[in-house]
Amino acid sequence: MTAYDRLTARFARIATVHEASAMLSWDGAAMMPPGGAAARGDQLAVLAGLAHGLLTAPDVADDFAAASAGDDPWHSANLRLMRHAHIRATAVPADLIEAQARANSACEKIWREARRTSDFAAVAPSLAEVVNLTRQYADALGPVVGLSPYDALMDGFQRGIGAADVAPVFDAYRVFLAEALPRAEARQAARPTPTRPQGPFAPDVQEALCRRLSAAAGLEPEHSRLDRSAHPFCGGTPTDVRITTRYREDDFSQSLMGVMHETGHALYERGLPTAYARQPVGETAGMAAHESQSLIVEMQACRSDAYLSWLGPLLLESFPGDPDAYTTSNLGALWRRVERGFIRVDADEMTYPAHVILRFRLEQGLVAGDLAVADLPGAWNDGMRALLGIVPPDDARGCLQDIHWYDGAFGYFPSYTLGAMAAAQLMAAAKRDTPGLDEQLAAGDLRPLVGWLRRHVHGRGSLLGFNDLLREATGKPLDPSDFTAHLTARYLE
Amino acid sequence: MTAYDRLTARFARIATVHEASAMLSWDGAAMMPPGGAAARGDQLAVLAGLAHGLLTAPDVADDFAAASAGDDPWHSANLRLMRHAHIRATAVPADLIEAQARANSACEKIWREARRTSDFAAVAPSLAEVVNLTRQYADALGPVVGLSPYDALMDGFQRGIGAADVAPVFDAYRVFLAEALPRAEARQAARPTPTRPQGPFAPDVQEALCRRLSAAAGLEPEHSRLDRSAHPFCGGTPTDVRITTRYREDDFSQSLMGVMHETGHALYERGLPTAYARQPVGETAGMAAHESQSLIVEMQACRSDAYLSWLGPLLLESFPGDPDAYTTSNLGALWRRVERGFIRVDADEMTYPAHVILRFRLEQGLVAGDLAVADLPGAWNDGMRALLGIVPPDDARGCLQDIHWYDGAFGYFPSYTLGAMAAAQLMAAAKRDTPGLDEQLAAGDLRPLVGWLRRHVHGRGSLLGFNDLLREATGKPLDPSDFTAHLTARYLE
Repeated sequence: MTAYDRLTARFARIATVHEASAMLSWDGAAMMPPGGAAARGDQLAVLAGLAHGLLTAPDVADDFAAASAGDDPWHSANLRLMRHAHIRATAVPADLIEAQARANSACEKIWREARRTSDFAAVAPSLAEVVNLTRQYADALGPVVGLSPYDALMDGFQRGIGAADVAPVFDAYRVFLAEALPRAEARQAARPTPTRPQGPFAPDVQEALCRRLSAAAGLEPEHSRLDRSAHPFCGGTPTDVRITTRYREDDFSQSLMGVMHETGHALYERGLPTAYARQPVGETAGMAAHESQSLIVEMQACRSDAYLSWLGPLLLESFPGDPDAYTTSNLGALWRRVERGFIRVDADEMTYPAHVILRFRLEQGLVAGDLAVADLPGAWNDGMRALLGIVPPDDARGCLQDIHWYDGAFGYFPSYTLGAMAAAQLMAAAKRDTPGLDEQLAAGDLRPLVGWLRRHVHGRGSLLGFNDLLREATGKPLDPSDFTAHLTARYLE
Repeated sequence: MTAYDRLTARFARIATVHEASAMLSWDGAAMMPPGGAAARGDQLAVLAGLAHGLLTAPDVADDFAAASAGDDPWHSANLRLMRHAHIRATAVPADLIEAQARANSACEKIWREARRTSDFAAVAPSLAEVVNLTRQYADALGPVVGLSPYDALMDGFQRGIGAADVAPVFDAYRVFLAEALPRAEARQAARPTPTRPQGPFAPDVQEALCRRLSAAAGLEPEHSRLDRSAHPFCGGTPTDVRITTRYREDDFSQSLMGVMHETGHALYERGLPTAYARQPVGETAGMAAHESQSLIVEMQACRSDAYLSWLGPLLLESFPGDPDAYTTSNLGALWRRVERGFIRVDADEMTYPAHVILRFRLEQGLVAGDLAVADLPGAWNDGMRALLGIVPPDDARGCLQDIHWYDGAFGYFPSYTLGAMAAAQLMAAAKRDTPGLDEQLAAGDLRPLVGWLRRHVHGRGSLLGFNDLLREATGKPLDPSDFTAHLTARYLE
């Protein structure tokens, strides 16, 4: 057994422990009775500790010193990714990691109550401690991976992308939005109010329809489940993907589009290269890449006129009512509406980047120490005024709305918008490569699109970095012009 | 930190890994899509390997050499049980354990098909390999734990009980059965045929009723779930118990009594001493003890006239129909019927021990090498003829019916009948100690019974061995006369 073989065996073991954790996390959100929460936390902590122990065991360094993966690009990328994971895991003292885990968990609990009561002061001390430990972590990690502290954090979510890649893209978008948003609003206002389908819509019927659409998009029932949870997500493992949603009796659009969004994530997991299962190179290419896959299915495909023209009759069949509510143009008017709002997760695709741009700017300030936690609510509200011209009436609808920072996740937010931009860029390339893609969407058939994604994204695992993946798939690195062109076509023409 | 403290921390970690495995096993049976099976097997194998590694790490032996638990009976029992677990884990070479895992898994797969086609010859070579490895394992383990090979296997399921304890009890039961069974049959035949409630019975209605009865017996919904699986079981962890059943549209009695059976198991887990959670002394006292708890709820409490008199009207409410079907005497006649049958899991409480006695005898022969695998079908059929006077028409209804041996579980079967006997003994003691227990059952109230079990069984964890547990709870070690008295009262008087 070569040193490289020993490393692949070890990483397979680590990945298998992570699979177990993924299933337990899914269970915790979708199945677990409340009385199981404390024990579940312990289970996840022990498994995380065991995986960390496997990654940082003393003999691993010797194997890395001796290992060679030869000339094969997959194996050499795999070895490079293994080293990267090992370096990240060993760069920071274990007691700091433990202190972070405790502080994040404590802060997240306090945040839940603080958000409910819109009381930022109640969580500010805990958040200050989370920020303080995050800065220590980023300061320790940065030099070891050759990145700035903030970029070292971003690298943990989307390898190879840093603030310098993101900032100009976001700056350009801000300029686009300032001009496009009022125009889109004016155009929208000039049209008749769309007809809203009349509920109640039975959750079981919504669920059956979600299953049907998800399966029609290519997610195999024998390798997936759809369940309910407070917050929709895609979890599980590549051969057993678990997606969740929630159902509102008065509106089926959120569950339906939410399930298609998670289906996009799930199809990515399903399409990963099985020859490199449980190896770093066989994993997804990062969170921005992941988000591109959910958004290409939800935003690019399923909210298109073509798909809506197929979907409308199905909706009418499931939820009999006024047929005018189910025409393509009415569904388009309902489900492609721009609106300046306070809440990121409710935002439309045009204003969503503004929410991300704000967070990107603020979290850089927090990590750099330029922005004090106490000044966060004011900075937030100033940013919302500048970006969208609105000011949240309270912090619950402002800087308390998202879990990320309160749970210690800094550097994640940009992935959402990088993913949205990549989705538009990939869709443009898929259409160029695949004649008749719109006609196929109009027949409810996502397979040609998913097939293209399999070849150009899913099946490539993390062989390539984000920009190289886009370059090979579309002929260029991340280029937001496909996204703004998409928005222009959809909202301004 | 003392050596004992280090050991308790280590065993807590091991138990937490086992909790993760328990949840994944539950998921595998109740939730997992078929495409997840291969990965799930890997996940369970890796977690088992990590737990085994924690138990057998080189520094553990040093801690055992240095550890003292002082005079406290709980801590000294805990240390004793830790040593016992460590000795069992280190007694056998790792390559033998791995060979067993592979052979058991391979044999179990072949058995599924062999049972379907009733083709013993197809699985005989695999079973021979399983038996061969089991014998090697038992031969290696026995001397280290100071037990005969077969007793060393039994000890893995119910500590402290060996063939010498079981054999005379089973011999006496055989004598009882030879006389009692024909009398019970004759008495039964002399009565009018009971009225069978007319279905179909909607699974959802059955499930709602099962939940209600289980909760009324004291199983808290915030610490448990009830789901569906091909084979009913109780899994999960003490703060998050997962029970399963299956529903037949033509008969609700199996799901109902099955759920009460699993509820008995679940209440045991729920009642374990929380001060010793995740420590060996805080676990259940073994498989016979566990079975006593399911059977005291199902057989002793829920099939009693008292409970049936409360249950009848509830059944009529859930499944409206002929009220005559729901009288106490009719339900008793339906659900307390003796019948010579081929299948253990379908057997009534009087003939069930005959199925176990047969297996106990045969598996001793297999482990000792006195019975060749090729001779198993003949020996099985001879045994059935001698014990119950019937001969299975094929091996599917004979020696192929149970998974246990084909999955490498030898020494387990006696636990079923020891549990049935202990259940009768505990019920007799609970009635002596608890005035009005029958009246409470007639009000559907199992809490006084469960309270007694909590004090005398659940809350004691594995502080005591099986016989000592019974002695302290009932004034005597295992004594089958309470069981035969129970059968006599129920079936012969």
